[in-house]
Amino acid sequence: MIKERFAAERLSDEQLRELAELSRVCKGDILKMTTLAACGHPGGSISSLDLYLVLFKYAAVDPGDPDNPNRDHILISHGHTSPGAYATLGRLGFFSIEAAVSGFRKIDTPFEGHVVRELPGLDWSSGNLGQGLSAGCGFALASRILKRGFHVFVAMSDGEHAKGQIAESRRFAAKYGLDNLTVVIDYNHIQISGKIEDVMPQNIKGNYLADGWRVLEVDGHDHQAIYQACREAASDGKPTVILAETVMSRGISFMEGLPKYHGAALKPDDCRKALAELGLEDDLDRLGQLRKNWSFQVPVRRFEYPVSLNLGEPVLYPAGSGADNRGAFGKALLSIASASCGSDDKTPLVVVDCDLATSVRTEDFAKLAPCSFYEAGVQEHTAATLSGALSASGVVVFFADFGAFGVDETYNQERLNDLNHTNLKLVSTHCGLDVGEDGKTHQCIDYLGLFNNLFGFKVIVPADPNQTDRAVRYMAGAWGNFLMTMGRSKVPVVTREDGTPYYDAAYRFEYGQGDWIRRGRQATVVCMGAPMTAYAVAASDQLRAEGVEVGVLNLASPLQPDIAALREAAATGCLLTLEDHHIRTGLGAVVANFLAENRLAVKFQKLGIKGYGQSGTPEALYAKEGIDTEGIKAAVKKLLAVR
Amino acid sequence: MIKERFAAERLSDEQLRELAELSRVCKGDILKMTTLAACGHPGGSISSLDLYLVLFKYAAVDPGDPDNPNRDHILISHGHTSPGAYATLGRLGFFSIEAAVSGFRKIDTPFEGHVVRELPGLDWSSGNLGQGLSAGCGFALASRILKRGFHVFVAMSDGEHAKGQIAESRRFAAKYGLDNLTVVIDYNHIQISGKIEDVMPQNIKGNYLADGWRVLEVDGHDHQAIYQACREAASDGKPTVILAETVMSRGISFMEGLPKYHGAALKPDDCRKALAELGLEDDLDRLGQLRKNWSFQVPVRRFEYPVSLNLGEPVLYPAGSGADNRGAFGKALLSIASASCGSDDKTPLVVVDCDLATSVRTEDFAKLAPCSFYEAGVQEHTAATLSGALSASGVVVFFADFGAFGVDETYNQERLNDLNHTNLKLVSTHCGLDVGEDGKTHQCIDYLGLFNNLFGFKVIVPADPNQTDRAVRYMAGAWGNFLMTMGRSKVPVVTREDGTPYYDAAYRFEYGQGDWIRRGRQATVVCMGAPMTAYAVAASDQLRAEGVEVGVLNLASPLQPDIAALREAAATGCLLTLEDHHIRTGLGAVVANFLAENRLAVKFQKLGIKGYGQSGTPEALYAKEGIDTEGIKAAVKKLLAVR
Repeated sequence: MIKERFAAERLSDEQLRELAELSRVCKGDILKMTTLAACGHPGGSISSLDLYLVLFKYAAVDPGDPDNPNRDHILISHGHTSPGAYATLGRLGFFSIEAAVSGFRKIDTPFEGHVVRELPGLDWSSGNLGQGLSAGCGFALASRILKRGFHVFVAMSDGEHAKGQIAESRRFAAKYGLDNLTVVIDYNHIQISGKIEDVMPQNIKGNYLADGWRVLEVDGHDHQAIYQACREAASDGKPTVILAETVMSRGISFMEGLPKYHGAALKPDDCRKALAELGLEDDLDRLGQLRKNWSFQVPVRRFEYPVSLNLGEPVLYPAGSGADNRGAFGKALLSIASASCGSDDKTPLVVVDCDLATSVRTEDFAKLAPCSFYEAGVQEHTAATLSGALSASGVVVFFADFGAFGVDETYNQERLNDLNHTNLKLVSTHCGLDVGEDGKTHQCIDYLGLFNNLFGFKVIVPADPNQTDRAVRYMAGAWGNFLMTMGRSKVPVVTREDGTPYYDAAYRFEYGQGDWIRRGRQATVVCMGAPMTAYAVAASDQLRAEGVEVGVLNLASPLQPDIAALREAAATGCLLTLEDHHIRTGLGAVVANFLAENRLAVKFQKLGIKGYGQSGTPEALYAKEGIDTEGIKAAVKKLLAVR
Repeated sequence: MIKERFAAERLSDEQLRELAELSRVCKGDILKMTTLAACGHPGGSISSLDLYLVLFKYAAVDPGDPDNPNRDHILISHGHTSPGAYATLGRLGFFSIEAAVSGFRKIDTPFEGHVVRELPGLDWSSGNLGQGLSAGCGFALASRILKRGFHVFVAMSDGEHAKGQIAESRRFAAKYGLDNLTVVIDYNHIQISGKIEDVMPQNIKGNYLADGWRVLEVDGHDHQAIYQACREAASDGKPTVILAETVMSRGISFMEGLPKYHGAALKPDDCRKALAELGLEDDLDRLGQLRKNWSFQVPVRRFEYPVSLNLGEPVLYPAGSGADNRGAFGKALLSIASASCGSDDKTPLVVVDCDLATSVRTEDFAKLAPCSFYEAGVQEHTAATLSGALSASGVVVFFADFGAFGVDETYNQERLNDLNHTNLKLVSTHCGLDVGEDGKTHQCIDYLGLFNNLFGFKVIVPADPNQTDRAVRYMAGAWGNFLMTMGRSKVPVVTREDGTPYYDAAYRFEYGQGDWIRRGRQATVVCMGAPMTAYAVAASDQLRAEGVEVGVLNLASPLQPDIAALREAAATGCLLTLEDHHIRTGLGAVVANFLAENRLAVKFQKLGIKGYGQSGTPEALYAKEGIDTEGIKAAVKKLLAVR
């Protein structure tokens, strides 16, 4: 059960007295936790504090029911104000205040330096500035799509408003009329290097007005005024921003307004002085002891939601049918949507686009389910983050984009999504030299190199349209973050020796499984993706006609390689890797690592991309890099001839 | 010799006739080149064409002297309008128009799908949208710093204005009063998916006005009006944007205003129809033949400028002095600046900051040379790109930032910088678990994983303050893109067995050189960075006391490993790698690759970071990951015990 948000017309005098007292006590908590940790950000925590108190106390959230799906969502974009958030949540009963004060920034406690979604009351992990409003857009959409009726409040700093991503999310919110979204800005005019007007002049109010938002202005330390503004913002209308004029470190005479306290904790003596000024007990020593032997049990959230989708019937692409993987993706998506959409017992399925629906083949989905299709324009940063946040709320989200934009441009957003345990299905078409004539900016050849750094992402690189079809269905139904990559062109269907499709009606995709497309005792080509797998098969078949037996092992889950299959492959004594990917950071690197860690000294050669590509046909580019069928054959022969 | 920009008050009737004729002819060129390539972007090329014609004809640029350092710089941010640019430049004599028309998007020609800086007349390679204005800021600064007096024109599309990075660069230009910067927007109201007002509503005019720019509005097909606006913009004043109202594909009746021609070439028959409508010769067949056997000699630019700096005197950090690498970086930078700044014969040295000068230790530089210190605020995307562009102009640029922001957040900007052959010195402090309590968002543990994908970037990871000092001086004087990474904490000075600094007065940094800090016949720890190298040395020294002889090889240039040293290391038969970096994508991966490619079956183990970090002290985090001295010793013993 959660309370009504901002229910009363005004706060009573008693409520105001309670908030004033909470504010005084929480300031002490903020100072104590940063002093005990000997680091952290007291200044902004204190200037944001009165905003946090009003929000967490009067929005529709309840410490007794913190995971209620209909609760208002409160996001903190400037995550370094964690002491302010922890003090507020601790004092309001979301968790033990002593646990927070004594555990702040200590290993093996949940009280991280920047706010984390694992803690009850907090709905987004942040730390990188400028992403919170995009996440807010995602949650506001979720509230609508899931008919939960909750409001989203995003607390932000003034300094972070210089980040361009915020302009993108402002436009998105205005376009979709997200009237359940409110931004609350701690306008303290201070950032690390000094006054924000000196460091980087901004027209925050003018920017919001230009983009069609409603702007309210309040004294950010006047609880009644904050309450009134939040109440007004949360009533029907436009997306609203509240500019809350504040003073950094307000209430501690020797800290007020000084930029140095943005990121510096007080020394113990100064902390004691401040506590005295606040009229608070000096229990630093006792808390310091608690810190040393910290042993609280703090409930932390887990984030796996059940996904229920009808995954539809596989589409079979016959040999020689000349389809493209992106088309197969689009068809599989459409088939899942057709089978699932409209059923109340199914998980909602949504597509986010960045002005490329035709190319990434989500346009048929858009026609089938226009209300589940969100067009974010050329705003990849905000699209990536809002997709993540939406996916974290119990909606299955496909964000499809070119690799250059959905991978290279938004790596950092996906990194933060991953830290937030999202459930995103990121589909990147137009990867590899296969992009051809668009040239090097558009040839995403580093998707494995990048996503190999993200511990929570699984990557799938299907070998042909049939494997794509099955892998899309698998991914839609599986929890967690996935990246699926593919090229642009029509590609051959991978076949068995009898000419029938390898990935046939009986095939089910399983993450981490390698597939022996051909067996061969003299050498193995370990490959991924299209058309590389088909090229390897062609090379194998042609070499067999010349009496050379070369196996082809497709690893469509290159970041979780099939170790048993690789052992078999290595047993031939001669291994090549083949990929339409950067030669240093992709499948070849994974296999090299396997060999080194297993002390396997075999003949080994990587085939891949050795420099930035040019504009040209994929075939010409492949030939130049020696990764077409002829190049593979030559490389196999050469490697076999090595002593 | 270059002409005066927009010299005449008005264009004469004859000049207008000439432009009209050029416009007609260039439209034919655009259609022919895209049809022959069977791909490309004719629609926007045609809507931007009249802007390109006026700019390239009347700005201070000259086809006979295209590399004149004082030439106006014309950047095209929406690089897919390359056909429009190539037609204009070809017809104005920058290169052969036939070469361009017949070579467009063909392998081994310079006429790439998106504009490239290699071609005379073009000053920035683009393809990713939204970055051109940031580059424009960099060039506008260069004009000022180098006292060249040139003006910078940035051609952009309307649709791309949704990109947040543009808001960042608008603010930067306004802050620094870049009155030598003019944006020209091809306002054709069309993007791939339809009308920009539908795809993502924007208030482009309002956004520029809110950020303090001057706005001019013209008919983008009226040459006189464009000329007048450019002339006005290029006179002293504020940074100015020209909103040029245009029609996509203007002048070809059956293409006008249709979004499909954003990215689709005409089929040959339609192209012939369009040529007839334009009253132009149909020479498609002849040009098709030229394309088949393309053999033009087109001059392409090279980009290495001489760098002349006084690199100052090395600072020696004695053993036990407890300095940090970022402090050593700051001191070295200050020493180079002190020795070089103010000398007219030295290359200007500039620092770009994102509100972190105190932490990244560039504040002393800022005090010494405030006019060479540019504060970009929390706008990492625009800072990264403008740093690159500025560095490309003959200024040595240090962009120093936390790893989480200067590496993770701006990978894509550095990728485009790299494609532009910039000369950037990117210094990332606060890398690794060494960041400690700020937690996982701030722990950049993927810098090698990311930058290993960038073919042009060299990466240096110094082992202690002495190596940092020498490497900073090396990097400042060397041409090309460098990333130097370091942690946050005070670290031990790496010493010889006699206790004196290993990197002593005689030491000179050399890219790619490995350093044997300890020799040992039983095993080798291959490591990088601080404090890891010192930890490895301590482990080696302690193990030696136990009778176990372990060598320590520091690879401070992990992406160009010292192969001879690695061979020696492997000869011990037992290899460990050690890094404060993601275990899958850093030094361990490089060494694994070395072993696999050289068929060396040795005992091998990687020590590194196996999951996202927590908040905690670096020591506690290192202990948890087993990469402190105790962890190293235990791992060595365990590996030696393996049969």
